[in-house]
Amino acid sequence: MTYLAPLPSKLAMVPFVSVADMMRIVNDAGVAQTIAAIADRIEADFLRWEQFDKVARVPSHSAEGVIELMPTSDGEHYGFKYVNGHPANMARGFQTVTAFGVLARVDTGYPVMLCEMTVLTALRTAAMSVVAARHLAPKGARVMAMIGNGAQCEFQALGFHHCLDIEEVRLWDIDPAATAKAERNLRGTGLRVVPCGSAEEAIEGAQIVTTCTADKRQATILTDNMVGAGVHLNAIGGDCPGKTELHRDILLRSDIFVEYPPQTRVEGEIQQLDPDHPVTELWRVIAGEVPGRRDAGQITLFDSVGFATEDFSALCHIHEAMQRTGHYQWLDMLADPNDPRDLFGMVARADAG
Amino acid sequence: MTYLAPLPSKLAMVPFVSVADMMRIVNDAGVAQTIAAIADRIEADFLRWEQFDKVARVPSHSAEGVIELMPTSDGEHYGFKYVNGHPANMARGFQTVTAFGVLARVDTGYPVMLCEMTVLTALRTAAMSVVAARHLAPKGARVMAMIGNGAQCEFQALGFHHCLDIEEVRLWDIDPAATAKAERNLRGTGLRVVPCGSAEEAIEGAQIVTTCTADKRQATILTDNMVGAGVHLNAIGGDCPGKTELHRDILLRSDIFVEYPPQTRVEGEIQQLDPDHPVTELWRVIAGEVPGRRDAGQITLFDSVGFATEDFSALCHIHEAMQRTGHYQWLDMLADPNDPRDLFGMVARADAG
Repeated sequence: MTYLAPLPSKLAMVPFVSVADMMRIVNDAGVAQTIAAIADRIEADFLRWEQFDKVARVPSHSAEGVIELMPTSDGEHYGFKYVNGHPANMARGFQTVTAFGVLARVDTGYPVMLCEMTVLTALRTAAMSVVAARHLAPKGARVMAMIGNGAQCEFQALGFHHCLDIEEVRLWDIDPAATAKAERNLRGTGLRVVPCGSAEEAIEGAQIVTTCTADKRQATILTDNMVGAGVHLNAIGGDCPGKTELHRDILLRSDIFVEYPPQTRVEGEIQQLDPDHPVTELWRVIAGEVPGRRDAGQITLFDSVGFATEDFSALCHIHEAMQRTGHYQWLDMLADPNDPRDLFGMVARADAG
Repeated sequence: MTYLAPLPSKLAMVPFVSVADMMRIVNDAGVAQTIAAIADRIEADFLRWEQFDKVARVPSHSAEGVIELMPTSDGEHYGFKYVNGHPANMARGFQTVTAFGVLARVDTGYPVMLCEMTVLTALRTAAMSVVAARHLAPKGARVMAMIGNGAQCEFQALGFHHCLDIEEVRLWDIDPAATAKAERNLRGTGLRVVPCGSAEEAIEGAQIVTTCTADKRQATILTDNMVGAGVHLNAIGGDCPGKTELHRDILLRSDIFVEYPPQTRVEGEIQQLDPDHPVTELWRVIAGEVPGRRDAGQITLFDSVGFATEDFSALCHIHEAMQRTGHYQWLDMLADPNDPRDLFGMVARADAG
């Protein structure tokens, strides 16, 4: 019997943005421009914070790492991201973090896009850092230290260069090969790139210090004596229970800003502090309810763990770009019988077809 | 500039089982045989219940319906399902329930399969009902009433016919067209199919009563006087807060068996009862820790809402079948730079390519 699968109907098809499609979308617009566009959308969505269904991400921990689901909804669309974090992956040639996500319509529950999110998460993480720094970094900051030169490094550097006029990035990593990779990639971007021999050296003269290391343990990338007055700390590597980067004493000297406290209390740098240590929700700063940076001597800390609404903002950006550019393919992902109640008949007729 | 996307590497590719692939896999083996195989796997996984990471599904409710994520892990694999429930969908030509899911490796966090699950959920729901009835239905049951003849109906009927020797199904639905559809689909399967004019008539002489209606409200499909001694109730339509099918008095006369109490207390028929009303976890019955059906006069109620481990069992079955049959395609879903830290370089080089 020759078998001819029935053609799926239009309702059954879901647009899929592959890694290759994502790279086309991003390169068509430019990496820095895409970060800027996602930053604007994140900021706009933070301004309507209360419209979102918010829940701490749902983790499944193992000895090797974590797999997480991050859902949210604004009442019109629903989005979620699947993301893993496996620090030992790099040594075996796998990514530490991979991700994909889905955007769906709330009224029908039907997905409208399946999307790679490994590249997109790197872009949105940089975009989120940019949004926080807009409100928290000292005015006129031109130098940023980058502690940890892994997969996230160049996206941060380019985002801060394009959106916040950072002119110099000072790189340090325990692995010099990572620093060399970042330096090579940032050539010709207009940034002054300074590889450094130590974290202390990298921090010299920097008004912004970004930490993005990936060790899944209580690490102390920065100690208290290294952090001077007036600095903005952009801490993005402490994002898992038991995984932190900053010494507790730094936290005690800083004004701490977070995305969604119920998640950050468990995953962020502040897991080292008392559960009632005061922190400020960043959305309140963006909404103008409370001040961000108040004076030039203050140490501001953005304790970033990544929240579902940021992925939602990024998915919405890509959903528009995908339709505009045509960089997607159709996937036969949803069963769509002629009569919705006749799922069985659809399966049976496929056999007879 | 002509643009040639770089070929994704093998690590970047995830096997995808489309709806057409799923129908091929199911029809190659047979619908009833697939339900039987999934039932065996569900039962085996219930026997190792304590190995699973268990969490109530994560719902996002709206006026129109619900979108849910259902994750679990056995320490070796991680699985989750995305599923919506939108009762008004049918009237607009959409499925009430659509679903897809992912199976991943816990050690790397990398997905090993993306899979349609609208068809698969129908199969696993029937398989779960079969597993429960094996332990709870009266011995020698040969007649089943089916109240609600929607998308789930024929899968239940075929599963019970094949696995439990049910010879007659008695159909009733508020919409005669649904009953006619089910009767047509069940022709030639060996089942005696009896369309009925009322729920009362359908229940006459049935040792098993399956309710699977889709209204998102407190409905009373069965009232107390309709349910005689010795019957097994297989209640699968009450699966959402505010959505039930059975009159409370029936529950009070029944011995109630559930999948995962923290989820069923919120979603199942027992949401009508006190939060400490005694229920039995089905896995304890399967493990032989507690009895299932004790006597011929007892009313047993399987208050089924569907739990993540059942989808996990179904995904594992399809993952094996997919590899055996080759019914899948590769998706470029994970970014895989040559150097895992060089995500930025991968994006930049795609532009230059």
